[in-house]
Amino acid sequence: MKVDGKHMRTIWLEPDGWSVGTIDQTALPHRFAMLRLASLDDAARAIKTMQVRGAPLIGAAAAYGICLALRADASDQSLERAYAVLLATRPTAINLKWALDEMVAAVRNQPREARVAAAYRRAAEICDEDVAINQTIGRNGLPLIEAIAARKSGEPVNVLTHCNAGWLATVDWGTATAPIYMAHDAGIPIHVWVDETRPRNQGASLTAWELGHHGVKHTVIADNTGGHLMQHGLVDIAIVGTDRVTAQGDVCNKIGTYLKALAAKDNGVPFYVALPSPTIDFTVSDGVAEIPIEQRGGEEQSTMTGRTADGRIETVRIVPDGSPVANYGFDVTPARLVTGLITERGVLDAASGALKAAFPERAGD
Amino acid sequence: MKVDGKHMRTIWLEPDGWSVGTIDQTALPHRFAMLRLASLDDAARAIKTMQVRGAPLIGAAAAYGICLALRADASDQSLERAYAVLLATRPTAINLKWALDEMVAAVRNQPREARVAAAYRRAAEICDEDVAINQTIGRNGLPLIEAIAARKSGEPVNVLTHCNAGWLATVDWGTATAPIYMAHDAGIPIHVWVDETRPRNQGASLTAWELGHHGVKHTVIADNTGGHLMQHGLVDIAIVGTDRVTAQGDVCNKIGTYLKALAAKDNGVPFYVALPSPTIDFTVSDGVAEIPIEQRGGEEQSTMTGRTADGRIETVRIVPDGSPVANYGFDVTPARLVTGLITERGVLDAASGALKAAFPERAGD
Repeated sequence: MKVDGKHMRTIWLEPDGWSVGTIDQTALPHRFAMLRLASLDDAARAIKTMQVRGAPLIGAAAAYGICLALRADASDQSLERAYAVLLATRPTAINLKWALDEMVAAVRNQPREARVAAAYRRAAEICDEDVAINQTIGRNGLPLIEAIAARKSGEPVNVLTHCNAGWLATVDWGTATAPIYMAHDAGIPIHVWVDETRPRNQGASLTAWELGHHGVKHTVIADNTGGHLMQHGLVDIAIVGTDRVTAQGDVCNKIGTYLKALAAKDNGVPFYVALPSPTIDFTVSDGVAEIPIEQRGGEEQSTMTGRTADGRIETVRIVPDGSPVANYGFDVTPARLVTGLITERGVLDAASGALKAAFPERAGD
Repeated sequence: MKVDGKHMRTIWLEPDGWSVGTIDQTALPHRFAMLRLASLDDAARAIKTMQVRGAPLIGAAAAYGICLALRADASDQSLERAYAVLLATRPTAINLKWALDEMVAAVRNQPREARVAAAYRRAAEICDEDVAINQTIGRNGLPLIEAIAARKSGEPVNVLTHCNAGWLATVDWGTATAPIYMAHDAGIPIHVWVDETRPRNQGASLTAWELGHHGVKHTVIADNTGGHLMQHGLVDIAIVGTDRVTAQGDVCNKIGTYLKALAAKDNGVPFYVALPSPTIDFTVSDGVAEIPIEQRGGEEQSTMTGRTADGRIETVRIVPDGSPVANYGFDVTPARLVTGLITERGVLDAASGALKAAFPERAGD
C-alpha cells in the first residue's frame, strides 16, 4: 500500500539481486527505516526480534532466509540447519512452517548448483502468491462492507480491528485490512476503530500508521473499549486476522481477540476473520486445548517505548519494581463466536464441513 | 493497609487540625508522595487531576473540600458554590454526589458559627464509615475465597481484578481488595492477576503497588489476557469494584470490565463486584442505556508515563502523529453477567428484588 504517496511492498530484493530489503517494524510509528538482510542469521534475527512480523510476512522472510542460507552453502546440511534455525524463531505462526516446507520441496531434489536459483524463484512466488491471495481476500470481503454501507446511507461504516493484520503483516494489502483498503479505494466512507493491542501496541503503532499513510479514517482506542462501543451501536463489523485457524474453525490470534469476539456475539455485531488458506492447520482441531500459546518476555508488558515531546525515543517502566508480569502472546477464539472466515476461496462458515469443502486438497493433512 | 510496613489511610487530617493530607496517586508507582489540601480549589483540583481517585476516596475528599470551603466562608452561597465546584470535578462517580449531599445535610440547618465543626465531624464520620463498610465487605467476601481455597488443597486461589478498587481507591481496605487482604492476612494462599487497565494503567501502577507493599502475590497482565487465563482454568474468581450500580444490578466500572465479565460467563468463572451501598443508584435502572460515560482527554491514550532505566520520569507518545484517539472511561456490565454483589449487607444477587430487599430504606430513592 502507500507510504508518503508511493506504493511499496513489505519485502523486496535489493538492487544487488540477492540481498533482501524489508521495513524495521520495531521503529514504527516514529521512524520509517529499511533493513537489509544478507544472511540466514539476519533473517532469523529480524523474525525473532519482530522487526519483521505478521504471519504471512514471517513466511516470506523465512523463505528468503532459506535463499540466503543456500547462497552461502547449498548443501543438505545447510538446508536442514536453516530450516531448524528459522522454524525456532517463533513458535505459533503456522505460515512459518508452511513456507519453510515449500522451500524445502522446491530445492530438495535439485542439484546443488541449481538450488540457489530455485530457492529465489520459489521465494518470489511465495511473495506474489501472498499478494494475490490478499487481493482475493479483499475482493471477497468487500461485499460485507458494501452491504453495511448500503443501509447506512452515507454514514461511514465502522470497522473494529485488533492488532495488525494489515499490509505490514503481509507482503501487501494485508488480510483484515484488504477489504478495508478496497472499500476505501472504491470511495465507500469507512472508519476503523484500531485496538491499541497491548502489550506490543501493534494496533497503535502499525495499523494506525498504515491506515493513516493510505488515507483511511481511523481512531486508536484502548483494548478495553470495544465492548462499550459495540453496546452503543458504534461498531458495524469486526474484522481481524489470525495466526492459525484449526480444522473446526477455531481462531488463534493476538491476545484479546477472544474478548472482542465475545462482545461481538453479545451485541449481534458480525465478527469476521480474514486469512490466507496456508493459515489453516488441518492437523489441529480444538484450538483452546491443542494450540500452545507463546509466552513472551515480561519487559513487553512492564515497559513502553515511545517518543518524548522533544523527539527522543525512550523506554519507560510502567509497573512497580518487584511486581511480576506475565505476557501471553495469543488466545483462541472458539469457532462458535466467528461469523465467517474471509478466505481467498470466499467467505466460509467457521466449521469443519465448510473448511473441508473449500479446501478438499488440504483437508486430509 | 501497609506501606513500608507501616499502616496508613489514604486521607487524613494534618497535625494543624484543619488541612487535609492525602497521597498523590499520579506519582505512583515510581514515587510515594504526600499532598496537602488547604482549600476548596486544592480539593477540586486533586479530584479533577486524579491525584485523588476511586469512588469512595473521591467522596471523602469532596467531603473535606466542603470543610475547607466553609472554613474560608461559612455562608449558604459558599456552601452552594463548593457543592457545584466539587460535583463538576468528575461526572460518573455517584459517591461524589452522595458525600456532598451528606455534607449539605449535616451543615444546612446549623448556625454559621457551628458549620465548620459540624462539617469536619461529618467528613471524619464519612471516612470512618467507609473503613467500616469496607471491612464488612471484606468479611462478607472472605467466605467466597475460603470456599475456593478449601477445594484447592494448598494451591493459591487465583483472583482476577481490573483497575484499582483497592485501598488506594477508598479510605482503607478497598472494596474488591478487602476480601483479598483479609484472606491474605488469614494465611490463605492467594495470587492476584492484575489487569494493567489501559489507558491510565491504574492496575499496573496502583493495584500492583499496593498489593506488593502489603505482601500479596500478584502478576500484572495486559487487559487482553483475562479471557485466555479463564479458558485455561487459571482464574478461580474475578472481583472488581464499581463506580455505580443501578437498581437492577447493572455495574458501571472502568472500561473493559464488561469484556472480563463476558469471559467469566463464557468459562463458568464466578464474577463478583464489591461495593459500598452508597454506590447503588436506585434512580437508574438500565445502565447501558441510562448512564452517561465520561470521555477523557486523548493524551491518556496516546501517551504513556513511566520511569526510564536511569530513573527519570518521562512521558512518551505511542500513537503516530495525526492518528486520532478516543478515550472512554467506563463501561456497563449488565446484571446478567454478575454472579453477585459483595456489599456491607452480604453477598446479593445483581437483581432489583435482592437490592430492594437489602436496602429497603434507599430503594424508594
